[in-house]
Amino acid sequence: MKLSKIAKLIDAEFEGEDKEILSLNTLKDATENELSFVANPKYVKDIPNSKAGAILVTEATQKYVPNNSTALVVADTYWQMAVLSKYFAPPIEDLDAAEAIVGENSSVATTATIAKGAKIGKNTTVMAGVYIGSGAEIGDNTILYPNVVIYRDCKVGSECIIHAGTVVGSDGFGFASNRLGEHKKIYHIGNVVIEDDVEIGSNTSIDRAVFGTTLIAKGARLDNLIQVAHNCVFGKGSVAAAQSGFAGSTIIGQNNVFGAQSGAAGHLEIAPFNTFAARSGVTKSVKESGKTFAGFPFMDHKAWLKIQGKLARLIK
Amino acid sequence: MKLSKIAKLIDAEFEGEDKEILSLNTLKDATENELSFVANPKYVKDIPNSKAGAILVTEATQKYVPNNSTALVVADTYWQMAVLSKYFAPPIEDLDAAEAIVGENSSVATTATIAKGAKIGKNTTVMAGVYIGSGAEIGDNTILYPNVVIYRDCKVGSECIIHAGTVVGSDGFGFASNRLGEHKKIYHIGNVVIEDDVEIGSNTSIDRAVFGTTLIAKGARLDNLIQVAHNCVFGKGSVAAAQSGFAGSTIIGQNNVFGAQSGAAGHLEIAPFNTFAARSGVTKSVKESGKTFAGFPFMDHKAWLKIQGKLARLIK
Amino acid sequence: MKLSKIAKLIDAEFEGEDKEILSLNTLKDATENELSFVANPKYVKDIPNSKAGAILVTEATQKYVPNNSTALVVADTYWQMAVLSKYFAPPIEDLDAAEAIVGENSSVATTATIAKGAKIGKNTTVMAGVYIGSGAEIGDNTILYPNVVIYRDCKVGSECIIHAGTVVGSDGFGFASNRLGEHKKIYHIGNVVIEDDVEIGSNTSIDRAVFGTTLIAKGARLDNLIQVAHNCVFGKGSVAAAQSGFAGSTIIGQNNVFGAQSGAAGHLEIAPFNTFAARSGVTKSVKESGKTFAGFPFMDHKAWLKIQGKLARLIK
Repeated sequence: MKLSKIAKLIDAEFEGEDKEILSLNTLKDATENELSFVANPKYVKDIPNSKAGAILVTEATQKYVPNNSTALVVADTYWQMAVLSKYFAPPIEDLDAAEAIVGENSSVATTATIAKGAKIGKNTTVMAGVYIGSGAEIGDNTILYPNVVIYRDCKVGSECIIHAGTVVGSDGFGFASNRLGEHKKIYHIGNVVIEDDVEIGSNTSIDRAVFGTTLIAKGARLDNLIQVAHNCVFGKGSVAAAQSGFAGSTIIGQNNVFGAQSGAAGHLEIAPFNTFAARSGVTKSVKESGKTFAGFPFMDHKAWLKIQGKLARLIK
Repeated sequence: MKLSKIAKLIDAEFEGEDKEILSLNTLKDATENELSFVANPKYVKDIPNSKAGAILVTEATQKYVPNNSTALVVADTYWQMAVLSKYFAPPIEDLDAAEAIVGENSSVATTATIAKGAKIGKNTTVMAGVYIGSGAEIGDNTILYPNVVIYRDCKVGSECIIHAGTVVGSDGFGFASNRLGEHKKIYHIGNVVIEDDVEIGSNTSIDRAVFGTTLIAKGARLDNLIQVAHNCVFGKGSVAAAQSGFAGSTIIGQNNVFGAQSGAAGHLEIAPFNTFAARSGVTKSVKESGKTFAGFPFMDHKAWLKIQGKLARLIK
Repeated sequence: MKLSKIAKLIDAEFEGEDKEILSLNTLKDATENELSFVANPKYVKDIPNSKAGAILVTEATQKYVPNNSTALVVADTYWQMAVLSKYFAPPIEDLDAAEAIVGENSSVATTATIAKGAKIGKNTTVMAGVYIGSGAEIGDNTILYPNVVIYRDCKVGSECIIHAGTVVGSDGFGFASNRLGEHKKIYHIGNVVIEDDVEIGSNTSIDRAVFGTTLIAKGARLDNLIQVAHNCVFGKGSVAAAQSGFAGSTIIGQNNVFGAQSGAAGHLEIAPFNTFAARSGVTKSVKESGKTFAGFPFMDHKAWLKIQGKLARLIK
């Protein structure tokens, strides 16, 4: 879409070349044919180094836009990014794509739906009521149990098992809000990638990334009814028990273990090889490894036990 | 159903006219062709003002029934209401209704099921494996992702997005119990109404009302794996993050924000414009607005932080 | 499978008769044609009394194997049991079984899938998108709402109602892990049995047993989005509200009541007739009856209220 058309959609002004913009992306990852935005003040410092073809900025931040980029000046950058996200989102299904490709020895139930442009590997089992969207790819020797839903452009590796009712690739919970309390949906342009040898339980939800990828790394194990929000990375060989939840953009290192009904806040980094007891609520990044945590807000497991002991004595 | 037949089903006695009863309803909302009941002592005071054609009462509360109504005297009013609810519940599907109506430019996947008597608006997308029950209505420009289930008589507005695996209109968790520990199901005669511009994530469950409506008001945003129990009202523009849950009959004002894994007990009223941190457990009605709460039982967010600080010092 | 072949698969040594092994089972329940294992030191004492045809043991525990049994010596018994579980798991669908049997007056939606070898009783309703696996049995007068999934060999009684999106019989969350942080799946050979007069809400997950049965006993009521892990017993007439979760092998007596978002750890026994408030976390077995508990770790409800009061005063 031409910059002039974009500017019109969001009632913005700009000067200079009428570039062709192909997608939206983060300041850090955007390239010359992509539009980016700055909503959070802490990213203002990254504007001068951005390679984005154009950037949504306010009057106040306009001055940081580098020469290689074009400033689009608006009052509410996040809201206007949300407005534009709708125009850059692919259609739900891609009716013009070629027929789906299904590898040899794979079995696909007659009530399953494989959209155009999807690819299924060899020896893979796609059971009743499964939906696999346009451009999605499923590896070899993988089992998708009944009524699993894989949204478009998501990838599931080989030797994976996904149990019934699990949803991979639904839009993340993202929207801009204005002062009237209205919310403008942010269409999610990213995807979910599930690497090889991953097992996921039933009725779990894994959201696609805003931009980029929500990643479930090789050998991970997710139980039932788990929430993995947009842009999370769930590390290699990490394990999460039922009803745990991981908020947006949290990066979980390899071989972490999360107990049932535990959770982690968004935008955290969790080092490898830690254990979080059931019901833990991880509120800060974790830099150590080999530790066991518990409680909400989480703390060293032994400290938590001590507090519980003190509380028990309090009532005597 | 004639009152005489109803009386026979529940082994009750009554005097007077053999009225035709068309439905069950609450004491407050029941009209002359409806039967009501009093199970909770706090509603006994409402009996004299009820317009219900007949009321299930005990020997003790029989005397409050007004002249315009007929008393049906039983030992356990709640249990007998449950017994009768089965007879007044509509069939699961309405095989005699006219064919479903689908508006222009709407697309319905071949594996989707639209029951007789349902109506779909214009430009709406009904994806694979979706079920829309009898009498349900879906607005314009709405997207129902794969395997969404809309039970009979529920309504979804225009410009809505419901992600895969979400269930709208399942029976609420209601039953009468006797001294033997047996439970008698209360069939849910009400519905769910989702107003315009609502987005709901994947694998969320919204239960239909016992009588009346469970309401998700305009502009609301619900994330994945959320529980909304029977007869809740989720206010205009309100937002709930993943794995939060709302117990029965709780009324949530506009533009409240609930963090992930938070919850609210039943029969509460929550004023508009409050924020509840992740894991909050709302145990009482909230009359103020513009506040931030946290913890379980919930409290002012700052108080909660102070307690966490004190507990942390306790163990040093 | 011959013991010699099994030994080869796991690189084990054995002496004696080359028995035919038909299945895997626990030390306690295994019979002469079954293979068992000892992974947890606390079960070593049960080896001498086992009737298993063969037992996976380490060099250290080999000496306890009785004469009627054959010792298969390996370094990591749990890992090797996981390796073997794949070979003893039945196929996902049984293509050679006879056609499914559907009782009179039952209605099965055209988009439902009933696998070969399944049996459906009389007057039962199987709605759109439901999947019923090989060898599964559904009783009379039961309703399976849209997109319910019943995995192979599971049983649902008569007069049951299962709401949309619920999954019965997915594999439990079980795997062996090695020092490299890799996980080897334990295929679940057991099933789920749901007795008569049980109602289960929407989007709930009930896992099949490793060996034996995960049991939901007669008259139980489970709400939406609940997790019941492998080998649990959910007692007769017991009730669990939305988003509660029960970890593996926990045995819940009759007529317990669990509030919303509550949970119980694994391998517990909970005596009948107790109440657990919303958000309770049951961390130990409960031997008393007739009590009310709250909190995490759970305690007497009154004690919990007292602690909350003290904490509230702390901040004043």
